[in-house]
Amino acid sequence: MIFSPLIDELISALRCLPGVGQKTAQRMAMQLLERNRQGGLRLSQAIKAALENVGRCSDCRTLTEQPRCAICSSQKRNRELLCVIETPADMLAIEQAGGYNGLYFVLMGHLSPIDGINPEDIGIDQLVQRLSEGVVKELILATNATVEGEATAYYIMEKAKNLQVTVSRIAHGVPMGGELEYVDGGTLSQAIFSRKRL
Amino acid sequence: MIFSPLIDELISALRCLPGVGQKTAQRMAMQLLERNRQGGLRLSQAIKAALENVGRCSDCRTLTEQPRCAICSSQKRNRELLCVIETPADMLAIEQAGGYNGLYFVLMGHLSPIDGINPEDIGIDQLVQRLSEGVVKELILATNATVEGEATAYYIMEKAKNLQVTVSRIAHGVPMGGELEYVDGGTLSQAIFSRKRL
Repeated sequence: MIFSPLIDELISALRCLPGVGQKTAQRMAMQLLERNRQGGLRLSQAIKAALENVGRCSDCRTLTEQPRCAICSSQKRNRELLCVIETPADMLAIEQAGGYNGLYFVLMGHLSPIDGINPEDIGIDQLVQRLSEGVVKELILATNATVEGEATAYYIMEKAKNLQVTVSRIAHGVPMGGELEYVDGGTLSQAIFSRKRL
Repeated sequence: MIFSPLIDELISALRCLPGVGQKTAQRMAMQLLERNRQGGLRLSQAIKAALENVGRCSDCRTLTEQPRCAICSSQKRNRELLCVIETPADMLAIEQAGGYNGLYFVLMGHLSPIDGINPEDIGIDQLVQRLSEGVVKELILATNATVEGEATAYYIMEKAKNLQVTVSRIAHGVPMGGELEYVDGGTLSQAIFSRKRL
């Protein structure tokens, strides 16, 4: 320990951020203390305010400080479409891409029994309850194209089988603008397998 | 804006950290809110405490919450040696390397008139004042081996000329364990130029 106790504590606390090791934390602490005290104060207050007020949307489980998030409360969205995603960042990505006008359901994770993440931890009960209310006509499974994402999508599909709802999965294949030569084999065989008749 | 206002503010505040862009800030915000609220609370408090209490050491200008830092107050250090460095992180590096037992003087930057950093901003007056007190016998210039660091070292050397103090500069050359083949040309010609008679 060469820095004084408060600086050491700051460096150690910064390491709770993802991707921040000892050197980066040191650099961040120095930056805050030497050059950007105003930014540091703002950050301290923003963290405190967010932690104290942000909870989950009662409808879609996304992070928000309101009881219901902006999308779930909006009158302009198509309430017959429900898109299941893993994280709030996925919601942002889909909104920024444009073209989707339905609602979302955020799992806040994916099934992973090995890490102790079971269906009740990702709100499957709440999702089934919502589907059984009969408003949603189509359920779009947009979990990640990873092993866990696929397993989660499959699990939800099985659960939704007996309900009056169409279940679909987002398309997987060659990315737009992608050159075949540089696309990985798994994606390419999936693209050929899922070919569309013209 | 798709996240709620408090989350947007948190993401925006996180971007004041060095090397953190929009995507990283989003990931950090999600991590704090979803998985590590305790760490977030600790971070918020650590930033606040550090900003409110950390100032500069009256002797060496490093960051500390005490009036004088641990090294300047220590009775075990050799007060005849004074090592001039650019940042507190440099002090850490030298302390961790071991072998140096003198005191430090932290410029908290380097001369850079183009960025508006002049001698008075990096405490040159205070350094000259300290040298003229007569306790320091040797001044070791350990600024970085960059253009600005070299210029700063040269400037300090000129200032110290008329004072009763030996001025030295840390050695530049091939790093220990370094293979000549992979050392850059500038370093190699410096190493040959500064060769030591055995």
